[in-house]
Amino acid sequence: MTATSNEREKDLEKLFKIIHNVKYAMLTTVNEDGTLHSRPMVNKQADSFHGELWFFTQRSAHKVTEVKKGSEEVNISYADPENQSYVSISGRADLVDDNTKKRDLWSESLKAWFPKGLDDPDLTLLRITIGEAEYWDSSSTVMQKLYGLAKATILGDHTALAGENKKLILN
Amino acid sequence: MTATSNEREKDLEKLFKIIHNVKYAMLTTVNEDGTLHSRPMVNKQADSFHGELWFFTQRSAHKVTEVKKGSEEVNISYADPENQSYVSISGRADLVDDNTKKRDLWSESLKAWFPKGLDDPDLTLLRITIGEAEYWDSSSTVMQKLYGLAKATILGDHTALAGENKKLILN
Repeated sequence: MTATSNEREKDLEKLFKIIHNVKYAMLTTVNEDGTLHSRPMVNKQADSFHGELWFFTQRSAHKVTEVKKGSEEVNISYADPENQSYVSISGRADLVDDNTKKRDLWSESLKAWFPKGLDDPDLTLLRITIGEAEYWDSSSTVMQKLYGLAKATILGDHTALAGENKKLILN
Repeated sequence: MTATSNEREKDLEKLFKIIHNVKYAMLTTVNEDGTLHSRPMVNKQADSFHGELWFFTQRSAHKVTEVKKGSEEVNISYADPENQSYVSISGRADLVDDNTKKRDLWSESLKAWFPKGLDDPDLTLLRITIGEAEYWDSSSTVMQKLYGLAKATILGDHTALAGENKKLILN
């Protein structure tokens, strides 16, 4: 394993660590009128990762989003202020009514948000197919962009475009 | 003052408290290819509030965003996990090169992010004109949408549409 791929592994590890640490992610969608809206989503991901993020949601909550009509561009952001880590994930979202997947991802702790449980006909899954992931981390006081990851990198196809690895001051 | 407008005042107060507590807000923009990207922005707002949010930024950081071309729809989100509070602000952004405003908003602490200071020709301001604000707060373990605020409400025009005030479970 080269130093570069070692570094990449570490960056990916860090990215997933941030994702798994955060309780609520913010989902941003574009409304029909072009305005952008975000809302907190309970973040409970599977242990294994295949380039997708999954969120339990209520079908009725998406009546004003474009997602209900099919795959739509969205952004998921993760903020971990305590560790000064921030993640932006760009991807396409669709509502997936897969009962097997629901059972796989379900845990009793989710009843706090979805009291009717798996039998609720309004309960569905929002699947985000990741197109790009970026994360920022603060070294001393300055927020730096550490890594922009193309989909191929996230999925482990290291022969393809590896994403940038430059440290850039963001704002 | 009626109970309702009292309540509204409290909600607005709470909204601004969340905004002022958070160090980095996430700015989401739509790229030319339709993908949505977010990035942390140093959040340092003026003490008085007139329906706008201001962020120092570097002109060059917006070379891939639509903002450089004129007023564009964006979303600013605030996450305060410690207090389980979340804010979504929908609005239009434009880059404003107003030296007086820059001097008004500038403080020496910003040098950590913008070491060249006010004289940097790349330093500019991103102004978000708020169209709508929403915030969520957790009561016990469940995240609830507490308030959706229309622009008129935020600006104090209480004769106009007052925004919804229903408690809704979000996800």
